Amino acid sequence: MTVQQFTDYVKKMQHYSEALNVIYWDMRTGAPKKGLEQRAEVVGTLSASLFDMQTSDELGQLLTSLETQKADLDYVTTRLVEEVRKQYDQNKKIPAQDYKEYVILQSKAETAWEEAKATNNFALFLPYLEQLISWQKKFIGYWGMKNGSPYNTLLDLFEPDMTTDVLDRVFGELRETIVTLVQKIGASPKQPDTSMLLKHFPREAQRALSLEILAQLGYDFEAGRLDESVHPFMVGLNHGDARITTKYDEHDFRSAIFGTIHECGHAMYEQNIDAKLAGLPLAAGTSMGIHESQSLFYENFVGRNEKFWAHNYERLQQYSPAQFGDVALDDFLRAINMVEPSFIRIEADELTYALHIMIRYEIERDLFNGDLQPKDLPQVWNDKYEEYLGIRPETDAKGVLQDMHWSGGMFGYFPSYALGLMYAAQWKHAMDKDIPNFDELLAKGNLLPIRQWLTEKVHQYGALKKPFELLQEGTGEGLNATYLANYLQEKYTKLYQL
Amino acid sequence: MTVQQFTDYVKKMQHYSEALNVIYWDMRTGAPKKGLEQRAEVVGTLSASLFDMQTSDELGQLLTSLETQKADLDYVTTRLVEEVRKQYDQNKKIPAQDYKEYVILQSKAETAWEEAKATNNFALFLPYLEQLISWQKKFIGYWGMKNGSPYNTLLDLFEPDMTTDVLDRVFGELRETIVTLVQKIGASPKQPDTSMLLKHFPREAQRALSLEILAQLGYDFEAGRLDESVHPFMVGLNHGDARITTKYDEHDFRSAIFGTIHECGHAMYEQNIDAKLAGLPLAAGTSMGIHESQSLFYENFVGRNEKFWAHNYERLQQYSPAQFGDVALDDFLRAINMVEPSFIRIEADELTYALHIMIRYEIERDLFNGDLQPKDLPQVWNDKYEEYLGIRPETDAKGVLQDMHWSGGMFGYFPSYALGLMYAAQWKHAMDKDIPNFDELLAKGNLLPIRQWLTEKVHQYGALKKPFELLQEGTGEGLNATYLANYLQEKYTKLYQL
Repeated sequence: MTVQQFTDYVKKMQHYSEALNVIYWDMRTGAPKKGLEQRAEVVGTLSASLFDMQTSDELGQLLTSLETQKADLDYVTTRLVEEVRKQYDQNKKIPAQDYKEYVILQSKAETAWEEAKATNNFALFLPYLEQLISWQKKFIGYWGMKNGSPYNTLLDLFEPDMTTDVLDRVFGELRETIVTLVQKIGASPKQPDTSMLLKHFPREAQRALSLEILAQLGYDFEAGRLDESVHPFMVGLNHGDARITTKYDEHDFRSAIFGTIHECGHAMYEQNIDAKLAGLPLAAGTSMGIHESQSLFYENFVGRNEKFWAHNYERLQQYSPAQFGDVALDDFLRAINMVEPSFIRIEADELTYALHIMIRYEIERDLFNGDLQPKDLPQVWNDKYEEYLGIRPETDAKGVLQDMHWSGGMFGYFPSYALGLMYAAQWKHAMDKDIPNFDELLAKGNLLPIRQWLTEKVHQYGALKKPFELLQEGTGEGLNATYLANYLQEKYTKLYQL
Repeated sequence: MTVQQFTDYVKKMQHYSEALNVIYWDMRTGAPKKGLEQRAEVVGTLSASLFDMQTSDELGQLLTSLETQKADLDYVTTRLVEEVRKQYDQNKKIPAQDYKEYVILQSKAETAWEEAKATNNFALFLPYLEQLISWQKKFIGYWGMKNGSPYNTLLDLFEPDMTTDVLDRVFGELRETIVTLVQKIGASPKQPDTSMLLKHFPREAQRALSLEILAQLGYDFEAGRLDESVHPFMVGLNHGDARITTKYDEHDFRSAIFGTIHECGHAMYEQNIDAKLAGLPLAAGTSMGIHESQSLFYENFVGRNEKFWAHNYERLQQYSPAQFGDVALDDFLRAINMVEPSFIRIEADELTYALHIMIRYEIERDLFNGDLQPKDLPQVWNDKYEEYLGIRPETDAKGVLQDMHWSGGMFGYFPSYALGLMYAAQWKHAMDKDIPNFDELLAKGNLLPIRQWLTEKVHQYGALKKPFELLQEGTGEGLNATYLANYLQEKYTKLYQL
């Protein structure tokens, strides 16, 4: 009886989430602007109702009741109780008054950050950043320390059980490899010609190609759709509705094509979760890092693979003949895999991207472990860019102020991006044993076995298994940065003939 | 204090409505089919929450409290209390158990109707129809008789204060004019050549033309958007978001073009309601008939006007040259205004449409006033079609079973369509005094003064004024069918040279 009550209650919360997500999707894919102000009130009302449900005594009692009969619960219910408990405590342990003050601060901090970034004035943002960090520390106090350090508590919110010990180890190994590669590449005379990348590629042709590629990757159009938005995203509305968006830049086709492939990786994760989890919060990615491993697997290991383009390059040429007609496949591949240290994370190439993340990680870790003061951020930021990437931002707008995450009080999230890269390489390594003809499949455009392998090892479980569990069972070991390091070493040594 | 509480409460209900409408819009404009089952659950959860709010004791107390201080309320609040009270009583006076049984019956009746229609078997639907009518009679008992007859209670749900006395009078007058005209037209040798209507007109070109026409009519794209759906509709999500859909039939462009113009009339009503009503249920059409008068005004008085096409015909020819290149404007106008008695209401022309409605109205009236038994419907239906339109349906599928309204228990709604026609003609007659150069404006494509006139007389008030009030103040008299009769008489006498 309680299990049924609990499941019904949880499903009802999911209904509210889904309604909110439909509204968010709509707001980001073409809702008329004059309606947005009132739409925000709708979001406010539904979010408040959802928060009331998420923090109700009724839910607390259901959880407690089920926790006392743990031995009698099936596996799905056990995990469901565990996940809902985690969310419940996270919401409930913060006193309502604190949370209210924090939300107000968040909103002010975002505005201050926007202005600080626009006017290149870190001092404007600093007091808000200091308060956000203080609040997060206070919240960590409420939540309790996880795995021995305050920052580990934050990491655990996005990547269950992740710790600075693990991150220090893997990032340390990776940094060495990447920094050395970047230096060698910078000194190499074999720089690619990238002039074709920014030529005109009509919007409609980009959309048609995006749809073709989605079909080839295995995206289920009966359980999703492709739209356009300013920033590409995937939203899993429910088990049968994982939508993606992309952005068509007529003077840089990479935004749409690689964006589509990336979001498709996210969407196929959601589309292929076991149907028995439908309607439950377990029918979702198990962590930010694992989710990102699916999108990056497709973006990097499929979308930047030479055999993938061996199969698709002719179509690309047909869609934009003036741009690619005279470009050899090999030159195209070198262009889309170009490496160049740059200031802006979201514009970084595959190789240097992880360095941007490591810098943010180290700063967050030190902020929360007390080794760094917020006021010193610009200096530390710039020093690290110089050390890792060999370039020094001339302005804070292009440096420490570039990302919006911290202005929303989001600490502990950045590592997920780099974890996604490492996980993806580790999946690829394990996949190679089962699918030795990976490149051949890409060359034939037969990507189904690849998606099926990922479904078997990752997708089907949703959040039923935790990241470390998935990784251990699917690859036979814990997180190992060597696979990413080896992949990058091999790929870029060959590309740049180092 | 209570006013604020009441307004906040009402706005919160509107937020739920808006969320539900976003979801409906999404479901009808391309939501992937595998997600629809779960989406239905979301609709169920939110609808139940909304119904709880709509029937809560809290709302009842707020209403009672405000009703005791009526003298102190401003006009908007007075009308708001009145409207919410009407809705509250309508929901609340039906015992929960009755309502539950009724909803189950509704669902079964819809399924039965679908099967009955598909297999042309009225007997399958009859028992459900009988029960639906019994339930509606029981509900009328709960709600109380309005204006002296049970059917008037139903009319009032859709068209406040409308009665069978009024409808008998106006329909009587109209029927005579139309029936005579239809007979004369049937006997006329001047039948139009309509062969160009069904030629191929590419989808994208139809969409481009639809967008141009919307801009010309005055549709505000910052407060709406155009999408495609199986059945065209307009949905007013909020004061700044009135969306329309249309349907592109590549072998009958009329569906998209006239559908778009029709829905635009609905949308401009919602877009031009006074901003002070935003967020309240008063920011909506005041009745079904008045709403339909705005869509039909644009569809018939603008979209079928020769000067409108004098201005737009060249564009139409450019968008589909093979279809219209050799067709003279005059022949085109005669084709799109063709009159021909037909069985299906939604395919009827401007002249015969009202006859379809009158038949349904007379049947509903007699069903509820006890002069007709449901089992006699097929016979009565066919007799009336023969009498009014001169044709007799060969099957019930093309006769009494064609519309879904009755299968959902919706009685009292049909008259709105014909009221819309009469109201529209009456607005047009009043407008002629203020805008004597109406045709000239259309010929120039300058439609702004027309929209502004409608905004001044109709749109701005939303549901602040009742239909009869709007009509009296805007045209100087109550409902008068003469204007529609005269318009039809004049137009079709000229077109068919009678």
